Amino acid sequence: MKITSVIEDQLAWDEKAHQGEPIVLSTRIRLARNIVNTPFPGWANTVQRKGLEEKVSKVLSGLEFMSEASHFAISDLSELERHVLIERHLISRELTEASEGASFWVSKDQGLVVMVNEEDHMRIQSVAMGFNFESTWKTINAFDDAIEACLDYAFSSEIGYLTACPTNLGTAMRASAMLHLPGLVMQEHMDKVVRMVNQLGLTVRGLFGEGSEATGSIFQISNQQTLGEDEESIIKRLVGVLEAIIEQEAHAREKLLEESPALIYDKIGRAYGILKNAHVISSEEAMSLLSLLRLAVDLGMLPEESRNQVDRHFIEMQPGHIQYTAQTEIEPGERDLYRAKQLRTAFADLADLSLKNGEKSA
Amino acid sequence: MKITSVIEDQLAWDEKAHQGEPIVLSTRIRLARNIVNTPFPGWANTVQRKGLEEKVSKVLSGLEFMSEASHFAISDLSELERHVLIERHLISRELTEASEGASFWVSKDQGLVVMVNEEDHMRIQSVAMGFNFESTWKTINAFDDAIEACLDYAFSSEIGYLTACPTNLGTAMRASAMLHLPGLVMQEHMDKVVRMVNQLGLTVRGLFGEGSEATGSIFQISNQQTLGEDEESIIKRLVGVLEAIIEQEAHAREKLLEESPALIYDKIGRAYGILKNAHVISSEEAMSLLSLLRLAVDLGMLPEESRNQVDRHFIEMQPGHIQYTAQTEIEPGERDLYRAKQLRTAFADLADLSLKNGEKSA
Repeated sequence: MKITSVIEDQLAWDEKAHQGEPIVLSTRIRLARNIVNTPFPGWANTVQRKGLEEKVSKVLSGLEFMSEASHFAISDLSELERHVLIERHLISRELTEASEGASFWVSKDQGLVVMVNEEDHMRIQSVAMGFNFESTWKTINAFDDAIEACLDYAFSSEIGYLTACPTNLGTAMRASAMLHLPGLVMQEHMDKVVRMVNQLGLTVRGLFGEGSEATGSIFQISNQQTLGEDEESIIKRLVGVLEAIIEQEAHAREKLLEESPALIYDKIGRAYGILKNAHVISSEEAMSLLSLLRLAVDLGMLPEESRNQVDRHFIEMQPGHIQYTAQTEIEPGERDLYRAKQLRTAFADLADLSLKNGEKSA
Repeated sequence: MKITSVIEDQLAWDEKAHQGEPIVLSTRIRLARNIVNTPFPGWANTVQRKGLEEKVSKVLSGLEFMSEASHFAISDLSELERHVLIERHLISRELTEASEGASFWVSKDQGLVVMVNEEDHMRIQSVAMGFNFESTWKTINAFDDAIEACLDYAFSSEIGYLTACPTNLGTAMRASAMLHLPGLVMQEHMDKVVRMVNQLGLTVRGLFGEGSEATGSIFQISNQQTLGEDEESIIKRLVGVLEAIIEQEAHAREKLLEESPALIYDKIGRAYGILKNAHVISSEEAMSLLSLLRLAVDLGMLPEESRNQVDRHFIEMQPGHIQYTAQTEIEPGERDLYRAKQLRTAFADLADLSLKNGEKSA
């Protein structure tokens, strides 16, 4: 399979179509795994890395989980393809910057990915749309067991899975959810939420990982600690906090709609009008506008069918995707023109906004 | 005729529908006239003012120009009706603040107005849509002659028409045009234009007269001097300057479209989308948005039929009109909601924006 097919496979999006709690965009779990008696990628030479890569790939290619999967060496990908895959959250920036021997496997529905020779020998990840830790954990746990049946993991009964970076020791698991919190942002309550989350040993990041700005009111919340608790306890604690945040977000929206409905309708109406008519849109503005359209779906002002389209565009409006779709490298200024055109086209047939009281907005 | 009919008479708008040079919204000439041996309104007592009012009204009611005209005493109008008439430019704020005996006559097509007992005994004005000094002058001159045939004007062969304020002595004429100059505003050339205009002895004001902000990129340009030149020379000089400004505006637009078409399309597209979808709009923002729609008509992005609708809304989005239409006094904050709703409704069926290259904007 070609990388272009992976990038352009809309089926993967549709199959993962959002269900359940609308505030949660996606659920993700990743496990770091290393093989015994083999140096970590950062300490290994090219021959060792390539040897590890072959060994792992041989195992993965034989697993039911990876039937119909695709496998790509990073060195075979263009700069732009790497950029797009990072924006898609399929692979990490670290993997694209890794030395010879770095590769990744991706299942047909793109729900399972194994990065080989990133910081650890293997970074296994499972992603699901919506709020879905149970099935995500079940899937990745079974996948991990299947791999472990064929490979000797570096594991200590005292400190758990051994990892290149000590912050991952223990479960070596990072569980996270992507939350859409426009209500808390508009109410200016996010500082308080971040403090609360941090105090509970969890981390808050933006849509594009560590240090990225929380554009589009999207926040990624994950466990910080990997030591001293088993996977299920970590997930249970994370889910508890997420549920509290979801409740706060719902409450913030209710309060906003009660106290200043016109303000919300105005923000959403303007976002709608601008997305359909602007000719210059930065990626940051696109995120804010899309965030408001997503809120409009939540509030029943746009049909539920629009949600998937909006969610896709959070990713497809990023600089890499814009250039990929344009099939040429374009300057940042021109990207804003191209992005606006893409959005005008994508949302040309968007349904009319309908207001709470049944009034149709023009 | 009731004042409500004058205010709501859409026929008056339609009959005055814009023709010719689109950069000029309207042409206006007003003459100050006083009757011999009668104190100016500011020096007269109530009996004298009422006597003058009766005398003038008797004459006007007999003139062909005023057949089917309406006549209103300021004291019979509510605060809100006065406010609306000022926003319509039918009468001046000074007239509404004048003492007993202040009234005005307005012709059926609202093109001719006589204010009685404002600063002078009579302020006669003629208005036409578009750039039309020739017919405006012809009309008001003939009307003035007709009045003069029945009343003795205070006139000196040395200093011309005698007026309450010495700045009006001479012709006692103020000729003005309302220009829409978004190109010069966007190019930040208006400071230069204002300096040039002032040096030529002309005055630049905003849409709502002396001291008002130039909202919606609309500027009123008029003669400053009334002494030492006859009416036709003043108008000729004014027209010469206006033609130069019109050329500069056209040039500014060409340059903007050549250098940064996307910027113009973006501004217009956003204005279009916001007008059709926002829920909170201040009168100042409404003016800017309407200004961009008007530019869209000029650029062929909206059909010519939309021009009259846009031009009307420059006036109808003002606070007095908003309250008048709402038929109740509403707080400034709620006015913004009401204004947005009016605009959404008014422009719900506005044609799609079409771009220069034939592409239809969403």
